[in-house]
Amino acid sequence: MNLHREITIMGDKAVAAARALARLSSEQRRIGLISMADELEARKPQIASSNAADMEAGRKCGLSPAMLDRLLLNDQRINAMIAGLRMVADLPDPVGSDIKRWTRPNGLLIIKRRVPIGVIAIIYESRPNVTADAAALCLRTANAVILRGGKEALRSNIAIAEAMSVGGARAGLPTDAIQIVRNTDHEAVKALVQLEGKVDLVIPRGGEALIRSVAEHARVPVIKHYKGVCHVYVDESADLHMAMKICENAKCQRPGVCNAMETLLVHEKIAETFLPPMCRRYMELGVELRGCPEARRIVPEMKEAVEDDWYAEYLALILAIRVVPTISDAVEHIQKYGSRHSDAIVASSSKAQEFFVSEVDSAAVYVNASTRFTDGGEFGMGAEIGISTDKIHARGPMAVEELTSYKYVVIGNGQVRS
Amino acid sequence: MNLHREITIMGDKAVAAARALARLSSEQRRIGLISMADELEARKPQIASSNAADMEAGRKCGLSPAMLDRLLLNDQRINAMIAGLRMVADLPDPVGSDIKRWTRPNGLLIIKRRVPIGVIAIIYESRPNVTADAAALCLRTANAVILRGGKEALRSNIAIAEAMSVGGARAGLPTDAIQIVRNTDHEAVKALVQLEGKVDLVIPRGGEALIRSVAEHARVPVIKHYKGVCHVYVDESADLHMAMKICENAKCQRPGVCNAMETLLVHEKIAETFLPPMCRRYMELGVELRGCPEARRIVPEMKEAVEDDWYAEYLALILAIRVVPTISDAVEHIQKYGSRHSDAIVASSSKAQEFFVSEVDSAAVYVNASTRFTDGGEFGMGAEIGISTDKIHARGPMAVEELTSYKYVVIGNGQVRS
Repeated sequence: MNLHREITIMGDKAVAAARALARLSSEQRRIGLISMADELEARKPQIASSNAADMEAGRKCGLSPAMLDRLLLNDQRINAMIAGLRMVADLPDPVGSDIKRWTRPNGLLIIKRRVPIGVIAIIYESRPNVTADAAALCLRTANAVILRGGKEALRSNIAIAEAMSVGGARAGLPTDAIQIVRNTDHEAVKALVQLEGKVDLVIPRGGEALIRSVAEHARVPVIKHYKGVCHVYVDESADLHMAMKICENAKCQRPGVCNAMETLLVHEKIAETFLPPMCRRYMELGVELRGCPEARRIVPEMKEAVEDDWYAEYLALILAIRVVPTISDAVEHIQKYGSRHSDAIVASSSKAQEFFVSEVDSAAVYVNASTRFTDGGEFGMGAEIGISTDKIHARGPMAVEELTSYKYVVIGNGQVRS
Repeated sequence: MNLHREITIMGDKAVAAARALARLSSEQRRIGLISMADELEARKPQIASSNAADMEAGRKCGLSPAMLDRLLLNDQRINAMIAGLRMVADLPDPVGSDIKRWTRPNGLLIIKRRVPIGVIAIIYESRPNVTADAAALCLRTANAVILRGGKEALRSNIAIAEAMSVGGARAGLPTDAIQIVRNTDHEAVKALVQLEGKVDLVIPRGGEALIRSVAEHARVPVIKHYKGVCHVYVDESADLHMAMKICENAKCQRPGVCNAMETLLVHEKIAETFLPPMCRRYMELGVELRGCPEARRIVPEMKEAVEDDWYAEYLALILAIRVVPTISDAVEHIQKYGSRHSDAIVASSSKAQEFFVSEVDSAAVYVNASTRFTDGGEFGMGAEIGISTDKIHARGPMAVEELTSYKYVVIGNGQVRS
């Protein structure tokens, strides 16, 4: 079948499934998700063997050890996926609630009511657990999903999605509520992100190249999850003990994620006191340090940072360090090199805190806390589908509420416009 | 200068202006808008003569009378533009308010705070008053704007924007808060909608071709304002007197706008009673009627409706009429042919009302009222920049609140993630 025709048919099926989902009660959808978790549980052997086939093919075509690790679904990861589904099933469902309502002088009652978005396409890379995690959050809020994962994970993704479809159908959910794009051609992604009138939102999750490619070809709305070049700025007014603790955590607790710190900015007045013990600690923990000339004067063991370092999302135990003359220089650095994801100030001065909070335009701006908290779970949202670096619709962690839209219901008794 | 370089420089200036705007208080921005209105008032003769030059050129190159009417800025329209600015100045400003705040078990205080979007690009066609209207709403919420109007209105747009820049600057607003793209090349639009990291949102306003072209080329978020193929469904339970009043208003009060009715759906049980007097009234008012076979059987004076009629946004005194056997058929018709803008049911049965409200997925769904109320002013929002037919970020009328984003401000006392 022609590829565009194939994707269009998937779109039509998703639209019909979204309508059917919206007709179900929140409780029916909750039960559907639990039934999906049960079916995943029952099919653990099939999922493991599909994943083994993906791993085998991946090894043969020379995937890197890091890629293979992402692809792997061991027992622990399958269990986590199942537990995640059960957790999402129990999340409060915002669909159908009234955001606000008011009456106009002519008597019209206007209700702004939360509704599902409709059809959401998710385009992601090699982690097959995203298939279950992302679909679950979409279904909780009555959205149908079309999933396009990495081709190296196709067998795993199909096994997971099939289990979920079967489990969901047993509880009365439409079978097409979850669909996997099986065509591994890149043209399939293009066709999918151009399905105007059928796909309401595309969420690309993965590396910068994937996201740029989706943004370039899309004709339907996209919410981008770009990289996190996160900063911690240690002000002259900082409690240096607290600063040490936060800077260690932001860089080292899990360096491979988007909310980890990539650049440390230090006010020059405290640099001589703060940097030597901080850098000693980093070196003990195996962090490679790359500094500006002033930072290197204070801690000569560091390498020299070049311009590219300030833009880098290392996702590794590497840290760029810059000494800044003023808080304004710190803010300017963040505005120039940052990615508007998560940035923190460590400061006791409330003037410094307020300046930083108002000037730094990032999804999450922290005062005296680690950047690592930018996460749906840590924010108390239960789970997240990703962290938006866009400013439209959703910013920062996207959870159930961010997977909804609204409509206006207007109740009259014969009003006409004059 | 190279076109891309030129547009990139505009983007950089807009980013700087947006930062400066965000630093001003709401009151400073209010005064800035009033000062802009004063300057427009003072420059009425220059604006009129720039517009006269546009009109003269438009006549020479053969613009249609309708296009020339849209282009015209007579005294009344200039005054309306100035009054609009003063009205927007006095709208409540949501920027800086906290949408919600909560404390996590670890003591972190999370504040979801409303912030400006940043830089908004508006791409529109021939009406020069959009220059002032759209810029004012963006500035009220501390967004910088880059405006690209129709080339036939360029002189008028420049005169308006210059007056606003000068007036704003006198009150301390950054001069680059409003910029006009003077390059009339279509490539300039492409460059503008691809300015990732500088333009935060594009709002295209105009015909379908314009909006499709923007959606196709954009790499930054777009909120689309597509056409309105709006329906009124008259249920078997309708108060037929009320239905007559609503159907007349929805079609005839102002047929050239997006919230006017284009297709009338009538339940077959009341069609014989309702259609003859309703159609007589329409014919008195000069409405051309195009019906399905059943509607034509009842009112033989109607023309035959073809498939294209059900998709048509006439924006004129033409109406398509279909008789439907059930409310479900009415809903299916709307799902298939509608544009998810505004649709109404006239019904006394609460079961029918509820079914229609939950099944029809449009920005505004009306019960016993005219579709003509979908409008920022009529909804009590003061003014609108347009009516979104997207489901992301904003749906229906977009007013000041819809021109904002949010950020999370997270306040700790040394919290780190374990």
